[in-house]
Amino acid sequence: MTDTTPLAPAAVPAPGAAPAPAGGLDFESWTCPAPLRDTPNVVMGHGGGGAMSGELVDHLFLPAYGAAAAAELGDSAVLDVPAGARLAFSTDSFVVKPMFFPGGCIGDLAVNGTVNDLAMSGAVPLFLSTAYILQEGTSLAALDRIAQAVGAAARAAGVRLVTGDTKVVDSAGGDGVYVNTSGIGAVPEGVDIGPRRARPGDAVLVSGDIGVHGVAVLSCREGLEFGTTVESDTAALHGLVADMVATGADLHVLRDPTRGGVSASLNEIARASGVGVELVERDLPVPETVRDACSMLGLDPLQVANEGKLVAVVPGQDAEEVLAAMRAHPLGAGARQIGTCTAEHPGTVVALTGLGGTRVVGLPIGEQLPRIC
Amino acid sequence: MTDTTPLAPAAVPAPGAAPAPAGGLDFESWTCPAPLRDTPNVVMGHGGGGAMSGELVDHLFLPAYGAAAAAELGDSAVLDVPAGARLAFSTDSFVVKPMFFPGGCIGDLAVNGTVNDLAMSGAVPLFLSTAYILQEGTSLAALDRIAQAVGAAARAAGVRLVTGDTKVVDSAGGDGVYVNTSGIGAVPEGVDIGPRRARPGDAVLVSGDIGVHGVAVLSCREGLEFGTTVESDTAALHGLVADMVATGADLHVLRDPTRGGVSASLNEIARASGVGVELVERDLPVPETVRDACSMLGLDPLQVANEGKLVAVVPGQDAEEVLAAMRAHPLGAGARQIGTCTAEHPGTVVALTGLGGTRVVGLPIGEQLPRIC
Repeated sequence: MTDTTPLAPAAVPAPGAAPAPAGGLDFESWTCPAPLRDTPNVVMGHGGGGAMSGELVDHLFLPAYGAAAAAELGDSAVLDVPAGARLAFSTDSFVVKPMFFPGGCIGDLAVNGTVNDLAMSGAVPLFLSTAYILQEGTSLAALDRIAQAVGAAARAAGVRLVTGDTKVVDSAGGDGVYVNTSGIGAVPEGVDIGPRRARPGDAVLVSGDIGVHGVAVLSCREGLEFGTTVESDTAALHGLVADMVATGADLHVLRDPTRGGVSASLNEIARASGVGVELVERDLPVPETVRDACSMLGLDPLQVANEGKLVAVVPGQDAEEVLAAMRAHPLGAGARQIGTCTAEHPGTVVALTGLGGTRVVGLPIGEQLPRIC
Repeated sequence: MTDTTPLAPAAVPAPGAAPAPAGGLDFESWTCPAPLRDTPNVVMGHGGGGAMSGELVDHLFLPAYGAAAAAELGDSAVLDVPAGARLAFSTDSFVVKPMFFPGGCIGDLAVNGTVNDLAMSGAVPLFLSTAYILQEGTSLAALDRIAQAVGAAARAAGVRLVTGDTKVVDSAGGDGVYVNTSGIGAVPEGVDIGPRRARPGDAVLVSGDIGVHGVAVLSCREGLEFGTTVESDTAALHGLVADMVATGADLHVLRDPTRGGVSASLNEIARASGVGVELVERDLPVPETVRDACSMLGLDPLQVANEGKLVAVVPGQDAEEVLAAMRAHPLGAGARQIGTCTAEHPGTVVALTGLGGTRVVGLPIGEQLPRIC
């Protein structure tokens, strides 16, 4: 179905208005919409492209998405884009396990993740697609909770959900719900942000505490307790990026350090730009709970995933101004400089340790924490 | 990673140049690229966002995609779009089982499926994303075969693969490979094709034999034999659509009748436009093998999926001209009129049977053939 969608999202809430977390897992109070009542669970027919697929869209996805949804979530949408715009285009599949975790769920994670990938090229996120792969037998109550989180996160981020797809796999395949989101954003004129633009002398900034998302998911997956509950930091960062762009500083690189953590992002930047990166370990904002969990499990907080943080590489002389803009935004309140780019050891990231030594911060090989997004 | 990609795909082959089918399943002759040789199979680390993820992109996906790939398949791509263009945006996840079937595999299916969704709004497909969910233990040889098919189909269709994602799920989740493709196309000025535009008096056309893809997948999944091997019709239809648009006829609706078959597409059109549809059963192009398979299994060929066919609704007076354009294209050689739109019984599709009676062609409820795409 085609659908012409106005360019500007209807309502853009205040920056930092994060979607409500998924909350508890008590689905008993959930009332199945009448047309879906034949079964409380996903069955193969929901993925068949017939009447049941249509009912799922009409009575579950569209109500959950609310104002964020295009009138119809058809096979394809026709969009008007601004004349001469450069577009950012991004895709991400989410397989996080468990699907619900402290501070969020796979639904808001999927929206925020793609919004952030777009934002890291300086783009204003505009349109998102959502494609679900559902395991037969998944409860519709859980699916509805996820779809509600998708809708809330999209409304909070001011993006329109314009097209979608639903497939169902039998119980032998899949486990629960996988969500793919793809997104389109508009890159403002004059903005040129990319991993090759880091230069010696640039400052390396981070927007706040690191390692939180990975520890949050791990703690509830493995039944580990680290004193206090660690909540995922999942959030949409394009508002923060817009405030940074508005300073007029020449932002060189932005990355959201998800899988592989800050370490993977900085190694990628160092290699792409041919610069060295020198971190100061004592300047890394690692919350105590994350530090405790990492030392208990033998993890490096630099390699643990974040879902609501960004790393920025900016010219040294602009660092203070950009930091001030970041700190004025709710999602950048804890922003600080954590290192600098150097002409030495190009392609390598090192950290100055508390003992006055230097260690190499390697690119993670595989993963420390599988399925955290 | 951002990547600026020129708008026009490098090379657009002759229309109808379908990607090579996946062929046999003998992976023994496959040589694993040296940097991937530590394991012949997918492991969790390939989805971790670290060095192993990068190796998979550099040594498997990029070589397989060849000229269709952007220089880097990063988290997001920056694209230049024509001034004032209307864009079509579409997403589809593919979970077909088995992944390899006569005439194709999940890889070319995923490219052609999204290309076709874009083409059905009259758009010229330009850019595609590919997002893989891999089950731990899947052989890299099979993944490479799929990626090769993705690359070949993208090159044949003249679309660029500009951004991507890879996740790995443990053996308990997923079975094999799931592929999501999302796509962006440009809708030519003056083209307005949509499911609400059917009018009484319009002709209903189909581009060729129906029911072929569903029967092809089913036959190899269930080990059924229907005399001759039925090969999937998977193909990219945008070249055929371009030729139809070039006639200057006011094309009202185009649909590719995938899941739910011709029946689901026509029911959707009838409801969205508020018209009746009257098919003539003896005019339906159902190949003998499909007819035999359907009668053996109790399936209605109108409800069986196609992946390389389209249904068109055009003004009655333009039908002959559009049919002539379709027949001149390799993918429309078997085009014919199968029915008309009526003012009677709005929202309902009926078929005039060979015995002179009329039957209602209902919207399929769930699915006859799960996981055929």
